[in-house]
Amino acid sequence: MKPDIRRPLVAEALGSLFLFATVVGSGIMAERLSDGNDAVALLGNSVATGAMLFALITMLGPVSGAHFNPAVTLVMRLRKELATTTALAFIVAQLSGGIAGVWIAHLMFDEPIWQLSTKTRTGVGQWMGEFVATSGLILTILGTLKTRAHLVPISVSLYIVAAYWFTSSTSFANPAITIARSLSNSFAGIAPVDVVPFIVAQILGACSGLAMAHFIFDLPENR
Amino acid sequence: MKPDIRRPLVAEALGSLFLFATVVGSGIMAERLSDGNDAVALLGNSVATGAMLFALITMLGPVSGAHFNPAVTLVMRLRKELATTTALAFIVAQLSGGIAGVWIAHLMFDEPIWQLSTKTRTGVGQWMGEFVATSGLILTILGTLKTRAHLVPISVSLYIVAAYWFTSSTSFANPAITIARSLSNSFAGIAPVDVVPFIVAQILGACSGLAMAHFIFDLPENR
Amino acid sequence: MKPDIRRPLVAEALGSLFLFATVVGSGIMAERLSDGNDAVALLGNSVATGAMLFALITMLGPVSGAHFNPAVTLVMRLRKELATTTALAFIVAQLSGGIAGVWIAHLMFDEPIWQLSTKTRTGVGQWMGEFVATSGLILTILGTLKTRAHLVPISVSLYIVAAYWFTSSTSFANPAITIARSLSNSFAGIAPVDVVPFIVAQILGACSGLAMAHFIFDLPENR
Amino acid sequence: MKPDIRRPLVAEALGSLFLFATVVGSGIMAERLSDGNDAVALLGNSVATGAMLFALITMLGPVSGAHFNPAVTLVMRLRKELATTTALAFIVAQLSGGIAGVWIAHLMFDEPIWQLSTKTRTGVGQWMGEFVATSGLILTILGTLKTRAHLVPISVSLYIVAAYWFTSSTSFANPAITIARSLSNSFAGIAPVDVVPFIVAQILGACSGLAMAHFIFDLPENR
Repeated sequence: MKPDIRRPLVAEALGSLFLFATVVGSGIMAERLSDGNDAVALLGNSVATGAMLFALITMLGPVSGAHFNPAVTLVMRLRKELATTTALAFIVAQLSGGIAGVWIAHLMFDEPIWQLSTKTRTGVGQWMGEFVATSGLILTILGTLKTRAHLVPISVSLYIVAAYWFTSSTSFANPAITIARSLSNSFAGIAPVDVVPFIVAQILGACSGLAMAHFIFDLPENR
Repeated sequence: MKPDIRRPLVAEALGSLFLFATVVGSGIMAERLSDGNDAVALLGNSVATGAMLFALITMLGPVSGAHFNPAVTLVMRLRKELATTTALAFIVAQLSGGIAGVWIAHLMFDEPIWQLSTKTRTGVGQWMGEFVATSGLILTILGTLKTRAHLVPISVSLYIVAAYWFTSSTSFANPAITIARSLSNSFAGIAPVDVVPFIVAQILGACSGLAMAHFIFDLPENR
Repeated sequence: MKPDIRRPLVAEALGSLFLFATVVGSGIMAERLSDGNDAVALLGNSVATGAMLFALITMLGPVSGAHFNPAVTLVMRLRKELATTTALAFIVAQLSGGIAGVWIAHLMFDEPIWQLSTKTRTGVGQWMGEFVATSGLILTILGTLKTRAHLVPISVSLYIVAAYWFTSSTSFANPAITIARSLSNSFAGIAPVDVVPFIVAQILGACSGLAMAHFIFDLPENR
Repeated sequence: MKPDIRRPLVAEALGSLFLFATVVGSGIMAERLSDGNDAVALLGNSVATGAMLFALITMLGPVSGAHFNPAVTLVMRLRKELATTTALAFIVAQLSGGIAGVWIAHLMFDEPIWQLSTKTRTGVGQWMGEFVATSGLILTILGTLKTRAHLVPISVSLYIVAAYWFTSSTSFANPAITIARSLSNSFAGIAPVDVVPFIVAQILGACSGLAMAHFIFDLPENR
């Protein structure tokens, strides 16, 4: 492995670790404290996620692009911003770092490390939510990169905060986090059986977002 | 239709789709989870709307101006920033995209697509709320464009967050969203019979905001 | 009156109108919806105030300095940034615009326009709160103007959000808003009899903040 | 003492005073108002802390670096950004200013000045939380300084907001605040007996964050 690829890979792994630990950890914290009021829990969960995402994209963006998300890496590969082997290595880094983040969250909250979620998340409405959420995420990333690139960290973070609230699935919008969250039987979990349709919807949404961004922002075919 | 107008029109339609889907979707989510505490619901609803608005204005502003609002388009027409036909096409795009957004929100939350709101929103207090909210919105847009244009996305988004809370109507401040929200029998809805007075108050407020901005910011008569 | 002073004065009056309408209006909204949970109400009240303050300082700062606060105007007068007559005119504009804002809030929420608060806010702890809150506000304004002037709108807004929470008085930190809030018998009110000690504490705090800023930021004696 | 060191030292003391007063004061306010819903209390506490932190780092960063935290000062000493005597003086300033801030919070809320917390915070999960929280904080500071230095105030503030939620200890991440909070028997307190393990975890976390930052951001050995 070339030395110059190692830093971006560690950035993707560590960024995914902190991001996924925040999603799951703040979910556990929110559920424990919120006394059954799930709207208060979702406020804590969404604000914490958006806040962490901003810090991570800001510092790690110049190192690796700060994807933390195979759907984003796929789109960047389709746009020929990175090679296939790099893209695959990114996805491995995201998944392994992210799962480690979920396990660290469990450790911090004195929960068993190994868990499988029993939380059902299924149905046409939620799949549509994942499609819409991911297409909007890709549109936001590509559009903001084109029109006001220095605002990508804040725009993407706030988009995700909004997406927690306006989609019925609370917007996973990320195949790696979908897999990782199936390993946590907490507020943020998803039953393993429900993972695949979510990922299919996310990938279709990502492609739709790419197509929309191409038209609206008049992106060059290849960079 | 000239090719160069198509991208702005799609931007207005798609921006309104995401914005209105966020207003209605986060309203449904907040109502379902908040256990009857409407202040918690309004927190979720207002934070989600402001967050989405920031992402949309940031990326789409350079494409279409990011109006998503016939009252804003009207003011820009009065300031001769766009032609009458363009303004009318913008309003059609906002309305059709926005209504599609409401319907997508219903689909995501497994609700019937076609709904009519039964939520009464009427009375001098609420009409005054719409007048004040829209005049402040126009003042913020025109004033910030004049004094610190790069801060328009954050200023407008935060103004809307505040306006949700300080007006008795929770600040629709947008004729297209008023019509679209009459098609949703949810937290964010408004009974169809109450739509027209809201729109009248919004248009009067927009004109008042334009007049105030002219004086305070010493705007040139025509651009 | 010279024409060039009229625009700043209207800016101070209108800014105070929107700011005070937001403080009182969002207080009424939060109290009505929060089902007796005052922490939720304070969240709505503080977020709305901070959001509006950002929008107002951003657009009106370049016009009038965006004081909206006689304690700030006093400090700027002591620093010889404006003449005594201008300072007095600013304070009149803040008070009259601000009281109009409170009355507009009452109208919007279908409450009687004329009210006197019965909410007791007194005692050494709260006076100390006003002293600390105002000294921190002046320190933030003068310090940020010296070190990172373009961040004044966001810094001052976030300082006020924090101050709502960390002082026992929820930080009025503004003699004009203290007087205006005595005219509202709502969540944000203060009994008229408690106004004078609050204002004394605020003025002492402002002077203390000015002294601290002089030392820490090495401010020139006179611009 | 040389005159040029006095201003940074006062900046560290006063910044710690306002920061720690905010952490403890907003904790007392949140606990009093939240009617037993601790998630709402943590929302108020975390939002207030992040908001104050932004204002303080923004204005005081150019004066002293805005550490307010012996773990940050230690890392900067290891990176040879300041002399050992300066570092020690910084830590004394942080501790004395910060404890004064806690006492002022007690005074403002009419509580006895001298308190010792009885709140147990112990166990491997919470120690791991402090390790993770502090390593992430140091990573954020050093990484953002390298890649986008002008965003340090907002990134660090938002990181802390997230850290309140995703760690089981609500992220003290600061030896001075750990000691100071042991002197407050309130929402934000920590029993004195639990202080030392927290500080050990924080220092180990800081060193781990420094190592990670060195690798990912390719920091020069010495500035």
